[in-house]
Amino acid sequence: MISAATRAAILSEALPYLKEYNDQIVVVKYGGNAMVDEELKKAVIQDVLMLHLVGIHVVLVHGGGPDISRMLKKTGVESRFVNGLRYTDEETMNIVQMVLCGKVNKDLVNLLDGKGIGISGMDGGLFRAVPLNVDEYGFVGDVQEVNCAIVEDMIAKGYIPVISSVAAGMDDLHTYNVNADTAASRLAGALHAKKLILLTDIAGLLANPDDPDSLIASLKVSQVPAMLATGAVSGGMIPKVDCCVEAVRQGVQRASIIDGRIPHSILIELLTNEGIGTMFSQEEV
Amino acid sequence: MISAATRAAILSEALPYLKEYNDQIVVVKYGGNAMVDEELKKAVIQDVLMLHLVGIHVVLVHGGGPDISRMLKKTGVESRFVNGLRYTDEETMNIVQMVLCGKVNKDLVNLLDGKGIGISGMDGGLFRAVPLNVDEYGFVGDVQEVNCAIVEDMIAKGYIPVISSVAAGMDDLHTYNVNADTAASRLAGALHAKKLILLTDIAGLLANPDDPDSLIASLKVSQVPAMLATGAVSGGMIPKVDCCVEAVRQGVQRASIIDGRIPHSILIELLTNEGIGTMFSQEEV
Amino acid sequence: MISAATRAAILSEALPYLKEYNDQIVVVKYGGNAMVDEELKKAVIQDVLMLHLVGIHVVLVHGGGPDISRMLKKTGVESRFVNGLRYTDEETMNIVQMVLCGKVNKDLVNLLDGKGIGISGMDGGLFRAVPLNVDEYGFVGDVQEVNCAIVEDMIAKGYIPVISSVAAGMDDLHTYNVNADTAASRLAGALHAKKLILLTDIAGLLANPDDPDSLIASLKVSQVPAMLATGAVSGGMIPKVDCCVEAVRQGVQRASIIDGRIPHSILIELLTNEGIGTMFSQEEV
Amino acid sequence: MISAATRAAILSEALPYLKEYNDQIVVVKYGGNAMVDEELKKAVIQDVLMLHLVGIHVVLVHGGGPDISRMLKKTGVESRFVNGLRYTDEETMNIVQMVLCGKVNKDLVNLLDGKGIGISGMDGGLFRAVPLNVDEYGFVGDVQEVNCAIVEDMIAKGYIPVISSVAAGMDDLHTYNVNADTAASRLAGALHAKKLILLTDIAGLLANPDDPDSLIASLKVSQVPAMLATGAVSGGMIPKVDCCVEAVRQGVQRASIIDGRIPHSILIELLTNEGIGTMFSQEEV
Amino acid sequence: MISAATRAAILSEALPYLKEYNDQIVVVKYGGNAMVDEELKKAVIQDVLMLHLVGIHVVLVHGGGPDISRMLKKTGVESRFVNGLRYTDEETMNIVQMVLCGKVNKDLVNLLDGKGIGISGMDGGLFRAVPLNVDEYGFVGDVQEVNCAIVEDMIAKGYIPVISSVAAGMDDLHTYNVNADTAASRLAGALHAKKLILLTDIAGLLANPDDPDSLIASLKVSQVPAMLATGAVSGGMIPKVDCCVEAVRQGVQRASIIDGRIPHSILIELLTNEGIGTMFSQEEV
Amino acid sequence: MISAATRAAILSEALPYLKEYNDQIVVVKYGGNAMVDEELKKAVIQDVLMLHLVGIHVVLVHGGGPDISRMLKKTGVESRFVNGLRYTDEETMNIVQMVLCGKVNKDLVNLLDGKGIGISGMDGGLFRAVPLNVDEYGFVGDVQEVNCAIVEDMIAKGYIPVISSVAAGMDDLHTYNVNADTAASRLAGALHAKKLILLTDIAGLLANPDDPDSLIASLKVSQVPAMLATGAVSGGMIPKVDCCVEAVRQGVQRASIIDGRIPHSILIELLTNEGIGTMFSQEEV
Repeated sequence: MISAATRAAILSEALPYLKEYNDQIVVVKYGGNAMVDEELKKAVIQDVLMLHLVGIHVVLVHGGGPDISRMLKKTGVESRFVNGLRYTDEETMNIVQMVLCGKVNKDLVNLLDGKGIGISGMDGGLFRAVPLNVDEYGFVGDVQEVNCAIVEDMIAKGYIPVISSVAAGMDDLHTYNVNADTAASRLAGALHAKKLILLTDIAGLLANPDDPDSLIASLKVSQVPAMLATGAVSGGMIPKVDCCVEAVRQGVQRASIIDGRIPHSILIELLTNEGIGTMFSQEEV
Repeated sequence: MISAATRAAILSEALPYLKEYNDQIVVVKYGGNAMVDEELKKAVIQDVLMLHLVGIHVVLVHGGGPDISRMLKKTGVESRFVNGLRYTDEETMNIVQMVLCGKVNKDLVNLLDGKGIGISGMDGGLFRAVPLNVDEYGFVGDVQEVNCAIVEDMIAKGYIPVISSVAAGMDDLHTYNVNADTAASRLAGALHAKKLILLTDIAGLLANPDDPDSLIASLKVSQVPAMLATGAVSGGMIPKVDCCVEAVRQGVQRASIIDGRIPHSILIELLTNEGIGTMFSQEEV
Repeated sequence: MISAATRAAILSEALPYLKEYNDQIVVVKYGGNAMVDEELKKAVIQDVLMLHLVGIHVVLVHGGGPDISRMLKKTGVESRFVNGLRYTDEETMNIVQMVLCGKVNKDLVNLLDGKGIGISGMDGGLFRAVPLNVDEYGFVGDVQEVNCAIVEDMIAKGYIPVISSVAAGMDDLHTYNVNADTAASRLAGALHAKKLILLTDIAGLLANPDDPDSLIASLKVSQVPAMLATGAVSGGMIPKVDCCVEAVRQGVQRASIIDGRIPHSILIELLTNEGIGTMFSQEEV
Repeated sequence: MISAATRAAILSEALPYLKEYNDQIVVVKYGGNAMVDEELKKAVIQDVLMLHLVGIHVVLVHGGGPDISRMLKKTGVESRFVNGLRYTDEETMNIVQMVLCGKVNKDLVNLLDGKGIGISGMDGGLFRAVPLNVDEYGFVGDVQEVNCAIVEDMIAKGYIPVISSVAAGMDDLHTYNVNADTAASRLAGALHAKKLILLTDIAGLLANPDDPDSLIASLKVSQVPAMLATGAVSGGMIPKVDCCVEAVRQGVQRASIIDGRIPHSILIELLTNEGIGTMFSQEEV
Repeated sequence: MISAATRAAILSEALPYLKEYNDQIVVVKYGGNAMVDEELKKAVIQDVLMLHLVGIHVVLVHGGGPDISRMLKKTGVESRFVNGLRYTDEETMNIVQMVLCGKVNKDLVNLLDGKGIGISGMDGGLFRAVPLNVDEYGFVGDVQEVNCAIVEDMIAKGYIPVISSVAAGMDDLHTYNVNADTAASRLAGALHAKKLILLTDIAGLLANPDDPDSLIASLKVSQVPAMLATGAVSGGMIPKVDCCVEAVRQGVQRASIIDGRIPHSILIELLTNEGIGTMFSQEEV
Repeated sequence: MISAATRAAILSEALPYLKEYNDQIVVVKYGGNAMVDEELKKAVIQDVLMLHLVGIHVVLVHGGGPDISRMLKKTGVESRFVNGLRYTDEETMNIVQMVLCGKVNKDLVNLLDGKGIGISGMDGGLFRAVPLNVDEYGFVGDVQEVNCAIVEDMIAKGYIPVISSVAAGMDDLHTYNVNADTAASRLAGALHAKKLILLTDIAGLLANPDDPDSLIASLKVSQVPAMLATGAVSGGMIPKVDCCVEAVRQGVQRASIIDGRIPHSILIELLTNEGIGTMFSQEEV
């Protein structure tokens, strides 16, 4: 049982953060456990609705790995990975597009209380991509152009954009599978977002990978190369670090890798003195 | 080879129609052959872009029967029909949603030159439905509420809305499979559309089903009951006629069943003296 | 030390209240201990800034009894009370106006971080009054007209209005001393406020005046006459109850008498499940 | 009898042109046979109304040679020409102004279905001129200033501006007779028009004046000096070519001399693959 | 030499009138001596510019009798009057239109310092008329429809509308000569003008036609029939009185017949305690 | 008795000035006799209302010396002056703030007919100051920041801002007593005002202090140093001259020291050919 005083204290502690993020855009890459576990998912949705209400413009970008794999299996399409990327032939691309734009996206939108609008990179010409390497990866796309007018239009009309990481072809009418972290990072840059949040299944960057208490709370982007050189960052985390660094370089004020396994991690990250995970910025905070 | 004079004549013949439909909404139910045949599809897309450019607000509503069946087959889900409606269990509903919202919708949007925005009944709380009869049909929905603000917002921002006929649950968080003709008709009413067009695979209503030259060009809605009583309208066409009548009753000025097998049939219907198919209105025109 | 989970829980508990009060006006009559005690004052200011930031439009109406008495004493003007109202001769009125509009108002504005704008009933013709009874009370005014355009204009421009309970003369160029509770109630009605909050130095209405645990959490306005008939409401509280009832009758959805001695009582009342004090509404909640 | 397919083909062929000219300004110098022949006139009016409806902003600039001569004759004022320019004494200027602003302009406006607004260079201070050479030509003006705000205001309000080529005096309160081609060219430049069209009574520029089939479809402005040097351009056409070149130099994308003797020549020029006449642009198209 | 004090007194005396007419429309029928005498004309123009600057929206409606007669004479067209109305055959109508729209209108516009915009009843479909009696009067029109959107649009854009009393045909493409007083009265009603002013060559209505000091300063419209019954109003003044009465009946607050022979009579009428001429209103002022 | 012709002449003489100041900001420092003498005060208020009505945006900045001294005396606080500045301890500051913001400001607002809005330097963070020299002068402030958004917002909403020369602390929560001339000058600069007017109790600058007829009507700011060097400007006038010079340097077009003892001096200065007092500008006028 929490006292009224404590409640008031916590609510009023949020004041400076609300002030800072008021009328600002926060791009959240939504993925991992927070998208699979129903309780965590519910908490993410609540957080997004809450931030929307208090005047912070959240943009959700999602992938959907497990759902794609399940559907591919069900339709008997073999999943093949090349250098960590899913080889995406035409049939696979069809499944990817259907699962992301039709299933994951719309299920999220359905939870957002009539405030969400779910689109893809094809809508309003949002993302245009060329093949990364058509021989090696098939329809895996490399985003060349971000035309974020449609996202701004939706924000202006009061909706919460939910975006599938599928892109239109730059030079053809194919659609392309693009990495959701990258899509979120590029979009945050184009939107001049105040913050990029990558929801992951780890606590953040550790100074000593073996010591869970060695979490690095914040890093200047200029410190990142040295950090990577220590080898403390595991392979799968490197592209996420790159996305954060790139977003900051393109003008996003802060980019954070946070632990999506903690309920309401977005709210804690944005509105409390604690913060969680590792934050990247131009200057150490 | 068509002469300049002829070109000019035809272009200028469109003047009164352009005047009449200027800044008005036209809801087009897109389906049948026009969605399957690639040439026809290309012509429909061109027509929609053209109408958009000349200041007519087109809203596309689509179903996607053949694609759904193909995908159900591929995933080994059995298709079962009850009274002409697809029995839609949870697994089927998943496939329906994925195919409509993820495949058909986004493929259309991808063709619309960065002007399209593809949404479903869950986006912005557009369609809310209850089960028609959960025991008999599963997740087949009966639309109870149409909240067309999101469509108006998109039109106001200059986009072409493309809408999948899937609805949010009125009282639950399920999604529902809804009939695309009905969705188009209800939406046209809510939007105070000037016109509803149902693209079909027939020429229109025939006074004598055996005589292809007996096409009825226009009908007052008050004449419809007598017309239906003659038995000249075949079973599958009856609900389409009902959709037209219902739209007109809700204030849509004209509702037409037109032949989608003719290339550019939308353009011909809207912008030439000819018109095609059968048009329903409050008063005979 | 409060855990991240608790923080998140409390923050997210505020969601439905934020939703309800979003873009709504809340008129707060600020007075009593909460205006005297520096800690309480600081908390009120924090609350108002917080509500402002999350999109709730707070309008502060204040009196200033103790400061007026102190200043009257300092200038050697005798304070005389008639039927509980301060007899207000011209000299007294001068002091009242100076203290309220020049001291209390501007000190509050000075704390509001450049967001406040302090006005009186003379500004923009906000309140116009006639003498209540010029012989008995002198320049004590009875508000006849509320022209709230100036308050709406300031809200539209993003400011927090702070209002002194001094009125312009309806038929003359005098200024009048008006009761702050009444001014707040009348203003709330004119602004179609969602809520009126009277900050007082008591816990609220008690069913049994001798039992501090017998707080009445909510009352329908139709229940008030019977309640007053029990004699459980002490004399000084009766006009405050009247202000609440009157506001509700004029369309304010809820009016609450809350305990200003509790820090952040406004935040607790508006944004938590608890609520404090006694709430009046058309229908019991 | 033209088939539905042909109609649709021609209408849809207009798509790219509609796209290109959408929300753009096209200044048309209206004169010659197209203003005299009633059938041609009717076609021009239809074309202008059509372009207006499809979102292209047409601005009509007109002269009125034959009507002026007729009126001068009727009032017994002698017409005298100096170097091809009408010597304009005060009495002549009165007639010129009356015929252009009062007769030709208002007759055109009267045909434009309540969409036209007819103004002169005096209205809103649109054109200010000094005498070209007061001794030689009298009140023939040389436009010094174009203040196109009034034209933009009228376009913004949805009207079709019709403009008489009469100017206010720069330094006096006289009015001046100005060349309509020049006025149109200068106005197109000031309005950042997409296109300038000069309706004439010839087919366009011919590479070989004796060969009607040697029409030059397009010219880069850099090619014009060489072209003029060949002597292939007849005297009266030279100032029209200059107007086109000047407009392009001032930022108008394309300027065309087209054959006003062909019905609907404006529509053909703007909305079909054919085009007619000779088009000038920065780069050959 | 007028003292600063006097200047200030007169300027400040205008305050209540400026307040009353602020952002209101005043329709002035401009005619008579004030249009012929160059000094008076200059004063009218100054007044109109001044009222425009201080936020009063003046709309000028003009006829042009003397100029028309002079031009008819010059072109050898005979002037014939039937019941006081000019018989207007096609040739006469041409001259009327040219003189009013091309000469009088544009000369006025030319004086208005780039603030004026001169239109006719054909522009924007402002006035639509049917023949009064085609056999008796030819193209003399009876105004059936006033569509004042174009005048409101020009006012909204900050221009001073100057309007020629020529109308478009209701059922044909002819233009019609309409009485300028009537046009002004009808327009004032349609615009919900605050005031209609008819500039005339008399002092106003006299109680005793033989006593120039018997000017009637104001009349309720209900008093007019009795007034007319006395026979004190001369024939030519009766239709002007009717125009005033009609305007008041259609909601114009005041209508005045004032003496245009006094310089700056409009300014005196609107901005000083004196007023001049005879004012008609619903209630005596 | 002034004739209609004279009235009209004076009113119309104002035309070019109305044109020049239309929609421009004029900052008036209101003080001296014009604030003490009731007749003069009434004239100032009338002038301000009149200018407001004719579209000139007046901003009043006031001090209140005599009222402050009177109140200090009444409360037994000793007035002490250091180098001509009032030593302002905390108690004095309280009185200063009360008198300026609560008495002088609100009494002015009360006269402005519901058009005024009275604020201080604390409202909307308008003026932020640091202590000039806390030891010598106490809470006398030196304005460091002018954030004039609130004044612009009020002007945009149609109010007449009335501003007390009290500032918020730059680095603390104290309030500061600031010189009203300086406040007016700084505000005029920040608002890009067209004109600054300082109402004083002298005729203006005299070339020869002993000759009241030697008034200097205008000065270029570049001439001021030489002027001051002559010693002709008395001590108390020097800071006022500095305020004018400073305002002109910050972009105010003209700054005038005028004689507030003449009724309607503001109106005479702004709207007549005469002007009064001494005007400073970048270039001699």
